[in-house]
Amino acid sequence: MHTPIQNIGEEGLIKRIKNLIDSEFISEEINDNLIKGISDDSAVFKIIPGKVQLLTSDSFVEGVHFDLTFTSLGHLGWKVVVATISDILAMGGTPMYLLINICIPQKISIEMIEEFYKGANQACTHYGCKIIGGDSVATAGNFVVSVSSYGIANPEKIYYRSGAKVKDLICVSGHLGASHAGLRILQREKKSYLEKRENFKPNLEPYKAAIEKYLMPRPRTDILNLIVNNVQINSMIDVSDGLASDVHKICRESNVGVEIWEHNIPIANITQKIADEFSENVIDYALFGGEEYEMLFTLNDAEYEILENLTPDVTILGRIVESSKGVNFIRENGETEPLPDGSILSKIKK
Amino acid sequence: MHTPIQNIGEEGLIKRIKNLIDSEFISEEINDNLIKGISDDSAVFKIIPGKVQLLTSDSFVEGVHFDLTFTSLGHLGWKVVVATISDILAMGGTPMYLLINICIPQKISIEMIEEFYKGANQACTHYGCKIIGGDSVATAGNFVVSVSSYGIANPEKIYYRSGAKVKDLICVSGHLGASHAGLRILQREKKSYLEKRENFKPNLEPYKAAIEKYLMPRPRTDILNLIVNNVQINSMIDVSDGLASDVHKICRESNVGVEIWEHNIPIANITQKIADEFSENVIDYALFGGEEYEMLFTLNDAEYEILENLTPDVTILGRIVESSKGVNFIRENGETEPLPDGSILSKIKK
Repeated sequence: MHTPIQNIGEEGLIKRIKNLIDSEFISEEINDNLIKGISDDSAVFKIIPGKVQLLTSDSFVEGVHFDLTFTSLGHLGWKVVVATISDILAMGGTPMYLLINICIPQKISIEMIEEFYKGANQACTHYGCKIIGGDSVATAGNFVVSVSSYGIANPEKIYYRSGAKVKDLICVSGHLGASHAGLRILQREKKSYLEKRENFKPNLEPYKAAIEKYLMPRPRTDILNLIVNNVQINSMIDVSDGLASDVHKICRESNVGVEIWEHNIPIANITQKIADEFSENVIDYALFGGEEYEMLFTLNDAEYEILENLTPDVTILGRIVESSKGVNFIRENGETEPLPDGSILSKIKK
Repeated sequence: MHTPIQNIGEEGLIKRIKNLIDSEFISEEINDNLIKGISDDSAVFKIIPGKVQLLTSDSFVEGVHFDLTFTSLGHLGWKVVVATISDILAMGGTPMYLLINICIPQKISIEMIEEFYKGANQACTHYGCKIIGGDSVATAGNFVVSVSSYGIANPEKIYYRSGAKVKDLICVSGHLGASHAGLRILQREKKSYLEKRENFKPNLEPYKAAIEKYLMPRPRTDILNLIVNNVQINSMIDVSDGLASDVHKICRESNVGVEIWEHNIPIANITQKIADEFSENVIDYALFGGEEYEMLFTLNDAEYEILENLTPDVTILGRIVESSKGVNFIRENGETEPLPDGSILSKIKK
């Protein structure tokens, strides 16, 4: 089915989206605090005493941030929600409410929009938050999605980019580069499809873990819960633009330098294998690939020891140093070079 | 000067925007409650006890919602802020914080982005709110702006679309159709410019009031203050999509019908003159033009009498009736016809 949106108009579309969203049960706190969701000029919700409030927004542009040839609308919905709430999670916050704005080109049908919202809603249900508003407009250009998220945090347990201290260890959850590896496979399959068309037989099974990391990233709420409940960290950011770019952000805001040790960068086997297939450097995937949604944070040695005993899934990447020493990358052979500030997917390239 | 954004990258751009915004003084409450503005994953701010919270978001697409041939970036910045906070104001709320996301095509320079933020900031200063975050991304498509706004309201003085009662009067602030009249002049001047080029001498002076209404709309905080402090109204919405469409929204959400009397629709002289120049029906401008940002509200007769004594700038448009009677337009000749649900600028046309 491919029904043009003009058939039902904006009001009809809003009604369908509202039905999709209201059919999901989210936590009682989320529902009880919501006074008015979709259907008025603004959404309205209650204040939660004793908390501070977080607000963040991200935009995603077809052809820059996603390719609809190999990203289904459902995956896109999941991903834009997750990418946005990741910014709340990375501050130690709890995402509660989201607004989603979509700029819809002619080629997008009602069914595709519904698939998009199903994916978005699935991510919301998974992370305990709810879509409460937004906007839908027509465009003659690309498909553009903007997501805003509201969350709350305990004022004693909020983590800024700016808190890193000299001598802190800098650590990351999980492993790096897999999302970019997944993207490379999807790009190759797209090329192959365009060349062969009818005879195209995609073989994605061996690369599933990397592709899933790209299409359905999962912010590490498991590690975040361990951190919030057990240790004191000094700064945190989510790895969205790429390790190098995000390390630079911590250093800039904290006015410190850093040594990142190549030897320590955690790479999954599948990521290594994919980079090898393309004869590309897997360390570049890890440094510049981005869209990992792993947590990058700094803490002192004693706190790290506590965390190390709670999970095997955190890796030391290096150490925070004085600002005057710069932001450096120590190669396996011991050579030191400046860590470039940029990402393969950087939104506006220098 | 036309400096490509690539020259300074996203971080450089954010720094320039931040400097522009921080140079403005906004009210102490706004500054004191803000814990972290632009520079981290999310903005962070304090809770204001005793209030409820409002959240809204709008997207604006080049070629659909604005035309850069006759809308300067400064006017665009003003307008997107005003259009978004109008949704907070129309619920009786106070806008406090905004996030602005921009999808920037190649043709847009740093200077243009700065002009955009100057206009946005000017609107924020005027209405006592502050930009605290957002996102900037590159696009190969059109210029797209998404604005999200957070506000607060007194839970006893919050106005929904859904509160209209049978026998209520339905009223509007100011006059209608002027914004669309201004747009028509700008469209004509654009056409004339494209035909004549060198010999083009625009003559906008006689149309200034209508053009200003289109380029720099001003939500009626004067009328809103009178309402909040003196009378009890039952429902409210801002006139953004056009009177007809917004009347339908109140009726739908309140489960009521309405009679709108053509005879009563307030039209400024300049609006009438412009419609006459184009041999178009000025009532169509008023019903379907939109982008007025006047306030449309319902209240009982006794409350209206109080308001009438406080301001001459509110007009009765008609009366709320039972849902079964429908949404009707009573022509000057006494004939009744259904009021169409749509707008000239409707975002996704039926």
